Amino acid sequence: MTTLELQIKRVGIDTYRENVAYLHRNCAVVRAAGFQALAKVEVQANGRAILAVLNVVDDARIVGERELGLSEEAFERLGVAAGHGATVQHAEPPESIAALHRKISGERLSREDFRSIIRDIARARYSKIELAAFVVATNQFELDRDEVLHLTQAMIDAGRRLDWHQEVGAGPVVDKHCIGGIPGNRTSMLVVPIVAAHGMLCPKTSSRAITSPAGTADTMAVLAEVELPFERLVQIVRETRGCLAWGGTAELSPADDILISVERPLAIDSPGQMVASILSKKIAAGSTHLVLDIPVGPSAKVRSMPEAQRLKKLFEYVAARLGLQLDAVITDGRQPVGFGVGPVLEARDVMQVLENDPQAPDDLRQKALQLAGRVIEFDPDVRGGEGYAIARDILDSGRALERMNAIIDAQGRRREPLEAAPLTYDVIAPTAGAVVAIDNLRIARVARMAGAPQVRGAGIDLFKKLGDNVAAGEPLYRVHARFEADLRFARQLAEVDGGYQVAPHE
Amino acid sequence: MTTLELQIKRVGIDTYRENVAYLHRNCAVVRAAGFQALAKVEVQANGRAILAVLNVVDDARIVGERELGLSEEAFERLGVAAGHGATVQHAEPPESIAALHRKISGERLSREDFRSIIRDIARARYSKIELAAFVVATNQFELDRDEVLHLTQAMIDAGRRLDWHQEVGAGPVVDKHCIGGIPGNRTSMLVVPIVAAHGMLCPKTSSRAITSPAGTADTMAVLAEVELPFERLVQIVRETRGCLAWGGTAELSPADDILISVERPLAIDSPGQMVASILSKKIAAGSTHLVLDIPVGPSAKVRSMPEAQRLKKLFEYVAARLGLQLDAVITDGRQPVGFGVGPVLEARDVMQVLENDPQAPDDLRQKALQLAGRVIEFDPDVRGGEGYAIARDILDSGRALERMNAIIDAQGRRREPLEAAPLTYDVIAPTAGAVVAIDNLRIARVARMAGAPQVRGAGIDLFKKLGDNVAAGEPLYRVHARFEADLRFARQLAEVDGGYQVAPHE
Repeated sequence: MTTLELQIKRVGIDTYRENVAYLHRNCAVVRAAGFQALAKVEVQANGRAILAVLNVVDDARIVGERELGLSEEAFERLGVAAGHGATVQHAEPPESIAALHRKISGERLSREDFRSIIRDIARARYSKIELAAFVVATNQFELDRDEVLHLTQAMIDAGRRLDWHQEVGAGPVVDKHCIGGIPGNRTSMLVVPIVAAHGMLCPKTSSRAITSPAGTADTMAVLAEVELPFERLVQIVRETRGCLAWGGTAELSPADDILISVERPLAIDSPGQMVASILSKKIAAGSTHLVLDIPVGPSAKVRSMPEAQRLKKLFEYVAARLGLQLDAVITDGRQPVGFGVGPVLEARDVMQVLENDPQAPDDLRQKALQLAGRVIEFDPDVRGGEGYAIARDILDSGRALERMNAIIDAQGRRREPLEAAPLTYDVIAPTAGAVVAIDNLRIARVARMAGAPQVRGAGIDLFKKLGDNVAAGEPLYRVHARFEADLRFARQLAEVDGGYQVAPHE
Repeated sequence: MTTLELQIKRVGIDTYRENVAYLHRNCAVVRAAGFQALAKVEVQANGRAILAVLNVVDDARIVGERELGLSEEAFERLGVAAGHGATVQHAEPPESIAALHRKISGERLSREDFRSIIRDIARARYSKIELAAFVVATNQFELDRDEVLHLTQAMIDAGRRLDWHQEVGAGPVVDKHCIGGIPGNRTSMLVVPIVAAHGMLCPKTSSRAITSPAGTADTMAVLAEVELPFERLVQIVRETRGCLAWGGTAELSPADDILISVERPLAIDSPGQMVASILSKKIAAGSTHLVLDIPVGPSAKVRSMPEAQRLKKLFEYVAARLGLQLDAVITDGRQPVGFGVGPVLEARDVMQVLENDPQAPDDLRQKALQLAGRVIEFDPDVRGGEGYAIARDILDSGRALERMNAIIDAQGRRREPLEAAPLTYDVIAPTAGAVVAIDNLRIARVARMAGAPQVRGAGIDLFKKLGDNVAAGEPLYRVHARFEADLRFARQLAEVDGGYQVAPHE
């Protein structure tokens, strides 16, 4: 609680989303205020303030006794020049912490509680520990549907919101989203060019892989730039009616981006958080109509039809109250979609479908046409049941490929060849028979071990799908890796359980 | 997943209990393995391994492209010299993470589950996020009593355990503990010298303040050294039959020390965690008999008698199964104990009681004698009901003071004068009447704002207690601070609500 002034220094350490302040152990502020490492402090300079975690430094080359070091993220967030004066004091707990404690005790929270919590999270006022507590508490005492509505609304209010009235008037702004969990399920990269070619506005933003071997943003990054400044993104949508960009730069739901950084390591994906996360981003992106893909299968996120129906109803309840037209489609999630798993291999599949290549995976093509058809039926001039045929015509005629190329050029084309990583290992069928089960989770894990998505060419190429016949010793799939160690780990995993069940013919 | 070798460098940054590894952004390992900031990595060197959080560095003066920087804590934990080669790879999740996920989903965990979780926590394999998830999950789905037993046993097994058979044979090794929450409640500093003077072995270790204005270790630190190497601590207990040291250096329950660092900022103190934390430390310290103080009052941790009874039964259940003799005493927790709140002011109270000073606070003296009496009755040669009188004789005769001085000298006497901080502010009675309520939490908060426990002389000196008569304008208590800003903050808080209720006489 002292007001001694220190000089701001930018410390070249990237701590990602965590603000860190570095103070020398002999700094008068540390000694007077009794600061300890990992204390939460408030840094004030030039009328601005941020919260940060304190690291105590013993090396004057990193920070001197009269300096206040800031990590890259903290320095940018504070936005005050190096050398400027600053003060440091113990941070007051965030305003909403009482509401957090009530949730931890199992109480139902109000609209105002969620607003206050999400505002504090978006402003980076929550520590990792507090974020984890919020995620676990809202996971355990399952949120009722009005709480999910409040959470979604709060997430929208905490971010930027796009408006496309100038472009479409009262017409629909469309999007398509999948709840995830199925490797190779890259239908967005087909649906967006098809519906944009139909003339609909589709400002699609995607995520990077969280626990999967590739997110749409990872796969699209093989073909084009995906980290686009906000203004550029808007311009591209105006020009091409569509885009396939990473959503993080758009700041559409900053609180959600922060929560995901905690949900991921805990592998928590509760229905309430899923609905709030997806719908807040779509509404913030200005979408008015959404087709939602809910895959069901024994190794999908949703394992049974009753569970899928419950989730669908929750999505519908919240969407309706927020003025979003929702068409939720329950799909077959019993196996990966397409042949490739991993950014390069998936991009290859997508381009083959767009190019009407006879080698293209038909399941990916059919699923994309089905979903694109549902989106096209949001067009008031299209009759119910006609969407699929319109989508197929757009794809077959090459207009979808043309539109995809326009989007790629607008975002910035990447010239790298679509080559899978060179080291390979084939997983073979132990006996002859038919493929009766494929474990999505196992396939995803092997592909990640092989290096996907960080190594773009790493992943899996599937040779057999459900119902296919195999001979003993015939390859089921091929693992691709760039590094020996990665291949070894992936192979070890696949040798324990390759994720395929082959049943002998009667 | 690459095995490129890097050179270990010690980076002079203290990150407290969090291991941090610093790698340069252009380091081949970062680029090849696609590491991102805050990723969890495993560092291996010379046959040893630690887990660490990754910070990416852009300044070659902190770490070069072929170096692996380690924070102070990480460097010490790894225990390999600077300049030695090391490799880095993505960390596998801790073994017990599946059990953690089951607890998050609300399942009951087995003895083996708790053993595996606590082992991983003690080895620093859990991230902050995972720790917070464990604490919130065990708080929400309240642990049943066998789970508390398993948790306690696992905490004992993960640490060091003392054995005093050589010293006492089959005789009792005693301790006294309070569940906390009452400012000024420094009875341990009286009970230990009294029972040690009676000849009982009392290896008392204490904690520092967590959310209070002083822990016993903070108050004792005014008089003597409390951070003692493990071997020295054992030696002191042999010499003086008692000690009043900080427990952290003894590594008696390392998992508990780590969990507390997360429970504290979340203000979570569930019955199960409290029982496991307290009993694991006592049993690890070799205690065979424990007197437990459970204060009850409207602003105490336990607010009602039924709640106190439930907590008492849970303590008794677990203690009995672990072979610890427990005597749980429910005490009056309606107001602070003694006059002083804060390390120096509490140390003054304690010394006045030991010196039989007529100014000494009688409530502190009476409570200490009562608890010491209960401990003394663990002595098989003492008849039930005689303990109090024996304790009083030891105190009145000066033998308790003599023993306290022996303990202080053995631990290392501090020569600082017992002076309260010089800046003061008096909180006065707004009207004449009698004091009818004192809010423990409010008094603690004002004392902390004034600088306690970091500023040892800061805190509060109480002039009036429950039932005392006051005139309008008469001081209720005095706030002591060393810094103007601290005094201002404490005063602002006290002006909103000073924590006293004065009711006019009829």
